[in-house]
Amino acid sequence: MSNRGDGALAAGWGPPYLLYLGDADDDLAIKTARGLAYWRPQWCVGQYRRSQGTPSLGLTDMDMARAKREGADTMVIGTANAGGVMTPDLVADAVTALDAGLNVVSGLHQKLREDPQIVAAAVRNHRVLFDARDPAGGIPVGNGRPRAGRRLLTVGTDCSVGKMYTTLAIERTMRARGLTADFRATGQTGIFIAGSGIAVDSVIADFISGAVEWLSPARSDGGWDLIEGQGSLFHPSYAGVSLGLLHGAQPDALVLCHEPTRRHMRGLPDAPVPDLERCLEANLAAARLTNPGVKAVGVALNTAGMPQAQASTACREISERLGVPCEDPVSMGVDAIVDNLLACCAN
Amino acid sequence: MSNRGDGALAAGWGPPYLLYLGDADDDLAIKTARGLAYWRPQWCVGQYRRSQGTPSLGLTDMDMARAKREGADTMVIGTANAGGVMTPDLVADAVTALDAGLNVVSGLHQKLREDPQIVAAAVRNHRVLFDARDPAGGIPVGNGRPRAGRRLLTVGTDCSVGKMYTTLAIERTMRARGLTADFRATGQTGIFIAGSGIAVDSVIADFISGAVEWLSPARSDGGWDLIEGQGSLFHPSYAGVSLGLLHGAQPDALVLCHEPTRRHMRGLPDAPVPDLERCLEANLAAARLTNPGVKAVGVALNTAGMPQAQASTACREISERLGVPCEDPVSMGVDAIVDNLLACCAN
Repeated sequence: MSNRGDGALAAGWGPPYLLYLGDADDDLAIKTARGLAYWRPQWCVGQYRRSQGTPSLGLTDMDMARAKREGADTMVIGTANAGGVMTPDLVADAVTALDAGLNVVSGLHQKLREDPQIVAAAVRNHRVLFDARDPAGGIPVGNGRPRAGRRLLTVGTDCSVGKMYTTLAIERTMRARGLTADFRATGQTGIFIAGSGIAVDSVIADFISGAVEWLSPARSDGGWDLIEGQGSLFHPSYAGVSLGLLHGAQPDALVLCHEPTRRHMRGLPDAPVPDLERCLEANLAAARLTNPGVKAVGVALNTAGMPQAQASTACREISERLGVPCEDPVSMGVDAIVDNLLACCAN
Repeated sequence: MSNRGDGALAAGWGPPYLLYLGDADDDLAIKTARGLAYWRPQWCVGQYRRSQGTPSLGLTDMDMARAKREGADTMVIGTANAGGVMTPDLVADAVTALDAGLNVVSGLHQKLREDPQIVAAAVRNHRVLFDARDPAGGIPVGNGRPRAGRRLLTVGTDCSVGKMYTTLAIERTMRARGLTADFRATGQTGIFIAGSGIAVDSVIADFISGAVEWLSPARSDGGWDLIEGQGSLFHPSYAGVSLGLLHGAQPDALVLCHEPTRRHMRGLPDAPVPDLERCLEANLAAARLTNPGVKAVGVALNTAGMPQAQASTACREISERLGVPCEDPVSMGVDAIVDNLLACCAN
């Protein structure tokens, strides 16, 4: 299994990484950094936090100069906020990292390369900047025509409920069984983990489904594309991205991801989280537009917020209600979901 | 009624217009120009066609130099193609127009300001370039929170079925009755007609619903915002745009637009057009996410392709099936739809 994608190498940046957490005060706001630390711990030299209130990833706290001395190549801006803007503190820290000799990569909407101070620091230090959310040029409009190959897509009741983790866990499990399966990254964290991919929330709106068709082209080697989902059809801010992604992915199989302790849609206190049946049915109905044979093969439950006994009960209850396996990819693995995937999509 | 928007004036371009048709060989490909010629005929000095095979709008054919002599201020590139690219012929014609002293505006995805030849010609002639599809900066992410005011949105079974015409016809009819109602443009043609607006298919995907919330903010004067729809929830290329637009519009009322002779989805010979009930129900279900009280108030049928008697029968049959008025905005007007809108949303 290649752990360092060609995309990263080609762009001149890559691991080892210093993970930048800044002054994030919300665990969801550091999900990019957390994803990297979880899936590629061997790549993470340390973390940089501005304040004691910022959650830790359990890595060694260090500044940019020390990270460079300890072998770091690139600082990953592993924070996310609504709108994706860079604060003055963040700009100053990026400049410090460049002056310390690190490359800097970011998944924020606001681009490193559009900030004059950051660009000047990159130039004077001969360092590389990479914006994961830069829309790739030359993407065609989607066409929805059936294409060869088998594809699984993770969908969610909300943002930040474990779609990327689930997709990567399925990749790991399938590969451990000797199957051919490739994670296809659609978000900033996934791109840093895979070394390639496309941030679908950052493409021009007309090209959402086309971007996913481009990311996951026809394949005829019998392998699976495991496509990372984004957002939710029920999120008032981002549902357009989710629908275009669903149509472009043309999935044979859906895995629904859910965080049962979530009280409301991420960032919107007044927006309720949809129930699982309604959410799954809406995703299946929309997915049939480009793949009438689509099937639900499992539910991935993020049970980090509940005791183990309660988590097991919740999974069993959901599995009975929806008629598909339900498990927590982090604490239980995804073997039952993969078993069902292979049974449902045997040929 | 102001017929020349502040947006157009502020940007330094505006009517009178020369409508550029180029070598378009498809009636749908000149829909921007046709919309302008229909809704603002007093602004259109003439048309420029490269070939005899290009459909005419019934305007005087003229080259750029003559258009300038006859008072034109701006050449509108009124053609559209999938992907929105500029051909070498189009680039050459834009340069000719600039050299003749015209400003040039375009609704293509590919930007005038990104072509070095066009930019050089604009600079040497002190002319203005305007790309209607340039994403407006500073748009916030959508939030879906209920906002004051009343909003109608046109939705469609497909692209190019008359959503803009229908919306403008409703504006005209409501204003003729002394009501306050404002067309909100979401596409290139609408922007040229209104003089302001935002091309929602051109914003970064994460900001689709936010763009529509920005375009149609809370209002408390008792008036209606009449929001131009785009695409279709059932179009595999563009459904993400349509869903984000629907959520951002937070409509009280939907008007479904349909072209009954359409054999397949625009540009996709293998994709069937959805039936009206299914399409309307899917739009209502999705719209309830941000406005649970949304209602369907009418169907706008584009009957240009059928004899009058058949058109009347079709409208009657659809009206009975769906339980709302159905009429052709061009040949029959929209009085019954407006009557029903006012009856449904009286308070």
